[in-house]
Amino acid sequence: MFPYKTSFLLNKSEKQPLYLQLANQFIKYIKEGKLPSGTKLVGSRTLSEMLNLHRKTVVACYEELVLQGWAESIPKKGTFIHSSLPMLHQQKFIDELPKENKKDIGFAFYTDEVLGDVYSNPKEDWMYINDGISDTRLTPTDEIARIYRRIAGRKSIHKHLSYGSTFGNETLRDVLVDYLNKTRGLNILKENLLITRGSQMGIYLSSQILLKEGDKIAIGETNYASSTITFQHHKATVITVSVDENGIDTNEVEALCKKHQIKALYITSHHHHPTTVTLSAERRIHLLNLAKKYNFAIIEDDYDYDFNYNHAPILPLASHDVHGNVIYIGSVCKTVAPVFRIGYLIAPKKFINEASKLRRIIDRQGDALLELTFAEFVKSGDLDRHIRKVMKIYKTRRDLFCDLLQQECGNFFQFKIPKGGMAVWVKLKEKYSWKKINKVAHKYNLSIPNVERYDTFDVGHNSIRIGFASYNEEEIYELIYRLKQTMTELIMKEKFS
Amino acid sequence: MFPYKTSFLLNKSEKQPLYLQLANQFIKYIKEGKLPSGTKLVGSRTLSEMLNLHRKTVVACYEELVLQGWAESIPKKGTFIHSSLPMLHQQKFIDELPKENKKDIGFAFYTDEVLGDVYSNPKEDWMYINDGISDTRLTPTDEIARIYRRIAGRKSIHKHLSYGSTFGNETLRDVLVDYLNKTRGLNILKENLLITRGSQMGIYLSSQILLKEGDKIAIGETNYASSTITFQHHKATVITVSVDENGIDTNEVEALCKKHQIKALYITSHHHHPTTVTLSAERRIHLLNLAKKYNFAIIEDDYDYDFNYNHAPILPLASHDVHGNVIYIGSVCKTVAPVFRIGYLIAPKKFINEASKLRRIIDRQGDALLELTFAEFVKSGDLDRHIRKVMKIYKTRRDLFCDLLQQECGNFFQFKIPKGGMAVWVKLKEKYSWKKINKVAHKYNLSIPNVERYDTFDVGHNSIRIGFASYNEEEIYELIYRLKQTMTELIMKEKFS
Repeated sequence: MFPYKTSFLLNKSEKQPLYLQLANQFIKYIKEGKLPSGTKLVGSRTLSEMLNLHRKTVVACYEELVLQGWAESIPKKGTFIHSSLPMLHQQKFIDELPKENKKDIGFAFYTDEVLGDVYSNPKEDWMYINDGISDTRLTPTDEIARIYRRIAGRKSIHKHLSYGSTFGNETLRDVLVDYLNKTRGLNILKENLLITRGSQMGIYLSSQILLKEGDKIAIGETNYASSTITFQHHKATVITVSVDENGIDTNEVEALCKKHQIKALYITSHHHHPTTVTLSAERRIHLLNLAKKYNFAIIEDDYDYDFNYNHAPILPLASHDVHGNVIYIGSVCKTVAPVFRIGYLIAPKKFINEASKLRRIIDRQGDALLELTFAEFVKSGDLDRHIRKVMKIYKTRRDLFCDLLQQECGNFFQFKIPKGGMAVWVKLKEKYSWKKINKVAHKYNLSIPNVERYDTFDVGHNSIRIGFASYNEEEIYELIYRLKQTMTELIMKEKFS
Repeated sequence: MFPYKTSFLLNKSEKQPLYLQLANQFIKYIKEGKLPSGTKLVGSRTLSEMLNLHRKTVVACYEELVLQGWAESIPKKGTFIHSSLPMLHQQKFIDELPKENKKDIGFAFYTDEVLGDVYSNPKEDWMYINDGISDTRLTPTDEIARIYRRIAGRKSIHKHLSYGSTFGNETLRDVLVDYLNKTRGLNILKENLLITRGSQMGIYLSSQILLKEGDKIAIGETNYASSTITFQHHKATVITVSVDENGIDTNEVEALCKKHQIKALYITSHHHHPTTVTLSAERRIHLLNLAKKYNFAIIEDDYDYDFNYNHAPILPLASHDVHGNVIYIGSVCKTVAPVFRIGYLIAPKKFINEASKLRRIIDRQGDALLELTFAEFVKSGDLDRHIRKVMKIYKTRRDLFCDLLQQECGNFFQFKIPKGGMAVWVKLKEKYSWKKINKVAHKYNLSIPNVERYDTFDVGHNSIRIGFASYNEEEIYELIYRLKQTMTELIMKEKFS
């Protein structure tokens, strides 16, 4: 007979009722074949005495087994394990499996080698050189959360809690259209704007709608790596164009257009990622003319618009797009904090409609509560006040960082002071290697990004971006100190080896 | 000469400083060709007098134009529009363009016919028959927002505001692993779980990793339309298998596996979407055996787990997946409110890693603040309390709705009382047509969903889902009243035509 008395482990302090704990343990034994098809179960009175349970608990458990189809009750005969249950084919059972085996996979799937590595958690006390990210200690999180809670408390809020528009919340769309038309010289209507979860989603949606296998997209050499990966993931043929101190070389773009039909060109016009240069006025106009003549889309990723230290922001290409060639991408993630996943995709209406249909099967819709919160945050002027505040701080940090880098490590690096943004493009003098530096840097709890990320096409720039905005004064000193220690040790090593 | 005096419209009450307003209007005229390359600008003193501005404003404006590259300053000669600027080729300018023209598109893109229509806003006072959605008036929004704000106010919160793990917030992953292992009999580790933005994202990620053009996926006939669309968007060959009162017919699945290599099978085991039936215990085991034998993935979308009125929830297929065949998808969106975009994708580690890499280029990451909020909401037992509360309410609504539907419209419809979920699968008697009903229903401000959505393969079920959970008692009476009015008018019309 089945060892009822020793087989069940019930816990009264668990939230799950006892009858259900009992039933689920029965199901486990049924699945494992320990209670095979057709087995007669002991009577409820007997089992309740064996397990020291109230009889009602056992009766409820048996009823549950019948209701779920694991058992059947035959009048005047008793309760039996259902006669039609097949055996589950397995040699071993969950609890007996070794750890690795549990993680085995029983089906085939596709992997894409262009996709980046899996995220790993940062270590305490380490400094990780970043790409140019904001200082989240300056984020007005409490203010934003206060707005969020106030909005969530509104009587009529339930209307915004269900399934809604895949274009994003209407109020935020209105506010952003107004804000972007005013601050960036755009001339868009609501139908030209889709709320995204940040710039990356804008790049992803655009790629999927614009590019199929073999379609050609022009990018700068260098280029923002996440966008290159996204285009490659969509099997597009990526063609690179030189970038100099005035941005992407538009004469090369023109030559390219004469030879190939390109579907799109991706650009971080302001400032170029990763080199931080600004596209000159001349080239802006040239590019718009080319897009019109050769009918390609310009994907303008204006991630750095809010941060200019030497002059006012330059109006985007999109501000002068009368022929519908520009897809304009931006976000508040960079400006406020990456955690607030609010961005926008701006394009001709037909394109926005297609993007919105696609978005429906990706993640259905945005977060209306957060979108309403940001509608208020933008409209009230809080966003602008935040930008003005952090701009001053980041400018000071840029100046300090560049001064110290020149002063302490000028022998090793070449760089120009960026006119805006949150990072410096730092070239390592030719005789040194970032990879070797990284190895030594680990001794000083300093992590240097993989230089290959900035050199997708193996050109050998020997450069990386070093973000300065996220560090306060003390941390900038610390970062430079660790860098200098690293370089000094490297020199010593080379001398004596 | 350029008509300086009448060309600029400056507004002191705008937030943008005057010098920048002036510069941006200059840029507009430069782009429009009204101030061509090489034009000498009037002196700053003259312009300041013409426009009645402080001279400093004009000087700052000219400096801005030079800094941005639109103008050049030649010593002792003055300020000129930059000599290297090309003309922007365009016949008309933004302000002169008619509305439609502005929406024109200057490049080609791909459309996918399988994707659904663009969302349109609901009208006031209308009732829209839905698919089975929760009543957001019962959502504990204020409680959730209070947790959100408390978490946002923590001193250490800034660590969670920047770029983070693409797997989702660590705390929520821990909480969900524990919660799902306890409540659903799963046996997973953290590495098996990726936080998504709801079930749809789980379906999208899985499709993209599992399916390429021509790969075969089995689905029920009928099937949840959003998932079918997602598989078709990925160019998979969708093969249907019959569904009866015990769910998907696993003998047909077996026959299918003998003929074709199928990569995956999609199932809403509990309850089948749209018919609301539950997969029998026998078939559950059969399906797991088949997946093991033929090495396919079972995508188990357990959207309805929390809502069972006649018995305890049936443990998912995933609770017995020892060979790594099951991809398990769920969310809190259905249970709490669609606005809270928190879901999970559970699968063998290798698959989760690939999904996390893919997710990085889709929308980078989740919303850590919301994820931390839900970690607390689940861990504190608030989620369970909420489920218990609304379960009772929905059961009452189901009973009332089914009673009234039978009583008032029983002549027209056939249906079974669903054992769980938020909708009834309602078959229209053969002589009637949902399309005709919808036309008449509009007179009563009632909108009936497109029946084709439930009949993707044109089988002619003549059935739709009618959600009951989102209506209170009064609204259920109103809905039935409108339905009955509609049907009565339809009958009258047919009699007299």
